[in-house]
Amino acid sequence: MLDRIRIVLIGTSHPGNIGGVARAMHNMGLADLALVAPRCEPVTADSVSRASGADHLVNGARVVETLEQAVADCTLVVGASARSRTLPWPMITPRELGGRLPAELAGDGARVALVFGREDSGLTNAELQRCHAHVHIPTNPDFSSLNLAAAVQVLAYECRLAWLAGEEAPAEEPGQALATHEELEHYFAHLERTLIAIGFHDPAMPRQLMARLRRFTLRARPERMELNILRGILSDTEKLAPPRDDT
Amino acid sequence: MLDRIRIVLIGTSHPGNIGGVARAMHNMGLADLALVAPRCEPVTADSVSRASGADHLVNGARVVETLEQAVADCTLVVGASARSRTLPWPMITPRELGGRLPAELAGDGARVALVFGREDSGLTNAELQRCHAHVHIPTNPDFSSLNLAAAVQVLAYECRLAWLAGEEAPAEEPGQALATHEELEHYFAHLERTLIAIGFHDPAMPRQLMARLRRFTLRARPERMELNILRGILSDTEKLAPPRDDT
Repeated sequence: MLDRIRIVLIGTSHPGNIGGVARAMHNMGLADLALVAPRCEPVTADSVSRASGADHLVNGARVVETLEQAVADCTLVVGASARSRTLPWPMITPRELGGRLPAELAGDGARVALVFGREDSGLTNAELQRCHAHVHIPTNPDFSSLNLAAAVQVLAYECRLAWLAGEEAPAEEPGQALATHEELEHYFAHLERTLIAIGFHDPAMPRQLMARLRRFTLRARPERMELNILRGILSDTEKLAPPRDDT
Repeated sequence: MLDRIRIVLIGTSHPGNIGGVARAMHNMGLADLALVAPRCEPVTADSVSRASGADHLVNGARVVETLEQAVADCTLVVGASARSRTLPWPMITPRELGGRLPAELAGDGARVALVFGREDSGLTNAELQRCHAHVHIPTNPDFSSLNLAAAVQVLAYECRLAWLAGEEAPAEEPGQALATHEELEHYFAHLERTLIAIGFHDPAMPRQLMARLRRFTLRARPERMELNILRGILSDTEKLAPPRDDT
């Protein structure tokens, strides 16, 4: 699925941002990058440095003159838009975009483009109107302009989550064995005995002490091995307790 | 809610990344930034440039020497971790983190820290063991290391979505006051001292004992009152311990 999602950057000015986008894409498992009329040289020391090992995406990016050329083979084109425009367009959230991807990409030859505009001015109205829908990343209204690589990062992250959700959930790694109810009860009995022995707990005045310790312990869902450690501590503590008065 | 989420960066090397983090935070409505032992000057031309209008967050960042100082008042500390470690810790996804935030931040005095490690080596095991849980951003296994600002961007985005979702939901009943990080660390120090005193624990042969006890305890999310009970038990136990050989 991820191999059929294309990131399209229009009129990018800063090579560093192209590198940052490449890194974000590769981190999330995307590999198809198209640059429309970049306003800078894509491959520079700065873009390679920011790509930080994903510079093959920068080197392999397709550079074209128009948005048309970049998305010609795409079955869904979504434009990233910070602002609501004069002419309202179908607007989705990044999460809704993720939710739609599996169905959108189910068909043969299906391909999705996510289109990002210029650092200073975003996408033009003409460009936005070439999109099926607009996606808006929710931001602080007082400071809404995301860095280009950050915007790609958020949408690529949603793409990856959608892809992971669609994968068959892998068998759970067997964790450590949890303590059984019986083992827990043995532990609580040992704990109470020890607390009485060291004089911390008076069963004649229980004050919910054991109930509180139970609640705390059960909340942690102890593993058998952890319970063994705790019982070891109790055993060593018991040895230090003074002999009981009534013996 | 967003004003009680702190971003903590440990040992950051590149001022540009601090600026990028500040921009990502401000974009998502976060404002509390702490820098632990930064390995660079935080306020530089590069950080101000990358902050791109969010440089007040860079200027206002609290700079401290230790993780302890940065998170002492926090009731939930979550570390960003790329790798699974020798001792597995509760691991959540960014989305699960977002889902938990409204309840976590419902109580008086609740505060959440999201902790990010060094660009080259992440968080140390000791730092990770001071966290209640680890959050892992799903990435391409072949290229998993996110740029620092990109990692903050993803988690801050999930924080904002959780906040936006909570704007409609009714407020949760505040529970008992949870122990702060500082109170937990005092407890762990007291616990270790006591285990040494009773001869259960030999710091020369630690065998992950304290790490296991930390993991168990942090998983239960102790309330302050529960920690007081546990410390009471430790104090009574300590009194029974034999005098130390070396005194």
